[in-house]
Amino acid sequence: VALLVGGVGGAKLALGLSKVLPSDALTVIVNTADDFEHIGVYVSPDVDTAMYTLSGIANPSAGWGIGGDTFQAIEMLGRYGGPTWFRLGDKDLATNLQRTAWLREGLSLTEITRRLSRALGVEHPILPMTDDKVATWLETDQGALSFQEYFVRERWQPVVRRIWYEGAEAARPTACVAEVLEGARLIVFGPSNPVLSIDPILAVGGIRDAIRRNQAPCVAVSPIIAGQAVRGPAAKLLGELGLEVSPLGVARHYADLLSGIILDENDAAFCQEIEALGVRAATLRTLMQTEEDKIQLAEALLNWAEEL
Amino acid sequence: VALLVGGVGGAKLALGLSKVLPSDALTVIVNTADDFEHIGVYVSPDVDTAMYTLSGIANPSAGWGIGGDTFQAIEMLGRYGGPTWFRLGDKDLATNLQRTAWLREGLSLTEITRRLSRALGVEHPILPMTDDKVATWLETDQGALSFQEYFVRERWQPVVRRIWYEGAEAARPTACVAEVLEGARLIVFGPSNPVLSIDPILAVGGIRDAIRRNQAPCVAVSPIIAGQAVRGPAAKLLGELGLEVSPLGVARHYADLLSGIILDENDAAFCQEIEALGVRAATLRTLMQTEEDKIQLAEALLNWAEEL
Repeated sequence: VALLVGGVGGAKLALGLSKVLPSDALTVIVNTADDFEHIGVYVSPDVDTAMYTLSGIANPSAGWGIGGDTFQAIEMLGRYGGPTWFRLGDKDLATNLQRTAWLREGLSLTEITRRLSRALGVEHPILPMTDDKVATWLETDQGALSFQEYFVRERWQPVVRRIWYEGAEAARPTACVAEVLEGARLIVFGPSNPVLSIDPILAVGGIRDAIRRNQAPCVAVSPIIAGQAVRGPAAKLLGELGLEVSPLGVARHYADLLSGIILDENDAAFCQEIEALGVRAATLRTLMQTEEDKIQLAEALLNWAEEL
Repeated sequence: VALLVGGVGGAKLALGLSKVLPSDALTVIVNTADDFEHIGVYVSPDVDTAMYTLSGIANPSAGWGIGGDTFQAIEMLGRYGGPTWFRLGDKDLATNLQRTAWLREGLSLTEITRRLSRALGVEHPILPMTDDKVATWLETDQGALSFQEYFVRERWQPVVRRIWYEGAEAARPTACVAEVLEGARLIVFGPSNPVLSIDPILAVGGIRDAIRRNQAPCVAVSPIIAGQAVRGPAAKLLGELGLEVSPLGVARHYADLLSGIILDENDAAFCQEIEALGVRAATLRTLMQTEEDKIQLAEALLNWAEEL
């Protein structure tokens, strides 16, 4: 199984799948278009969310960072007038310092992620979508904002008119990602933000084609439940970009790739219209609160995909 | 007063002097030959020791770092197999991250030190000896070691045969340092390690000459008391380098520059031989444990220097 994810929602499904699939049967492919350099440190937020979640050290309430982390460094940085809007915890800072040190040594993001994951006891491979530089930009009513400026600093309040993924066309999936997408017997788009998490992965030169070439089923889990995102700006953004804020909107957005979509049982009303697109629809309880929820969704997803 | 210092001993005297002299009457000139880049962060240990001491946030027991600091980042770094021998605390890390970020923006170490000091409420100017790169190296029985490798990683256990200050000759004192050394009415060598803290400052091209040109008294405070260093490798190093491990050895080492030396009352026996070098000697209680000790030594030093 190849699972494409961005932030928290995708990481939750990754955790569920990791509990029912051995490490050689699941690869998590992660968006890196949110990566940025902050106070001289290379931060890869989605990779870390996946890594922290699969290792069991993620902060369960915040949706980012490490549980029980402290913020001594960032508070001291504030005393010097440095930027504090990106709340890197002290342990989280260590992850990013080590990543940055290894990048300077010439290691690839893929190799670095492998080393960090192994140190944290993560068994399932987590692969950055590319080792090349891709950066999400948003044209907003407050001008062009980089992803982190929009998402963290401005708390996704600006109205977005357009999103682009700088460098994506020229970027190439890593050899590992290409191999996984070629050999996967199921490709899953996690319940991550379609335009901020999944689209940047699909925008990397060659990834969309690789998914199309693979005859295996490609299934999305809708991040929209009852017209809302579980967390984050997915609903707000889809609306601002003129897409329908529903599983139907998500299915349409990926219609050329998807064999099926899993939507929440609350959204059963959309099934008919989705199937009219040629995309199979299944309703499940998709809200993942407990670990049990995550495992159940993962199992149900795998069972349903068998039928496709 | 221009005070030349390295680590803890010098910083203690700086604190004492700062309590009896207004901010326009004392400038602390700090060794930067211990500076190094560690996990991508530019660390300037002596500058920070001076800054933390004068701001009152220094860790009183360790002799480095910030009181009450935590070590979450460095411990996490250890989990990734990163280096943990240099124990940067979380707040201390913030100082160094901010310094590094400003260096990358093109600011000088002098300007950065001014900004950091101001943020910490330090009123007396702290000046890096130079904005150029100087690095202390030690030829030891375990091969050539950089200063931090020798001092922190190897806990100054290797036997040292030779010390050199890479880049010192080509380095130039900053304009501020040159101005202070030219205008000072008293120049003090703090009770810092002669060969690791004071010598690198004196090795910077032009500094020795500037001190000689200034007709004002130049006074050292002996870091050796009763044949021992208060802390650190001063005694061990002087011995290994064939220098006498006493205030006499210190006075001889700087004889061409010194008008006087302050030695501990326990070392009064050396006064005669020191004065025979043409260096005035005064005995005082030089061990600075309490703040009161520091102030008393500062006051006695200033009074005595008036006589010179």
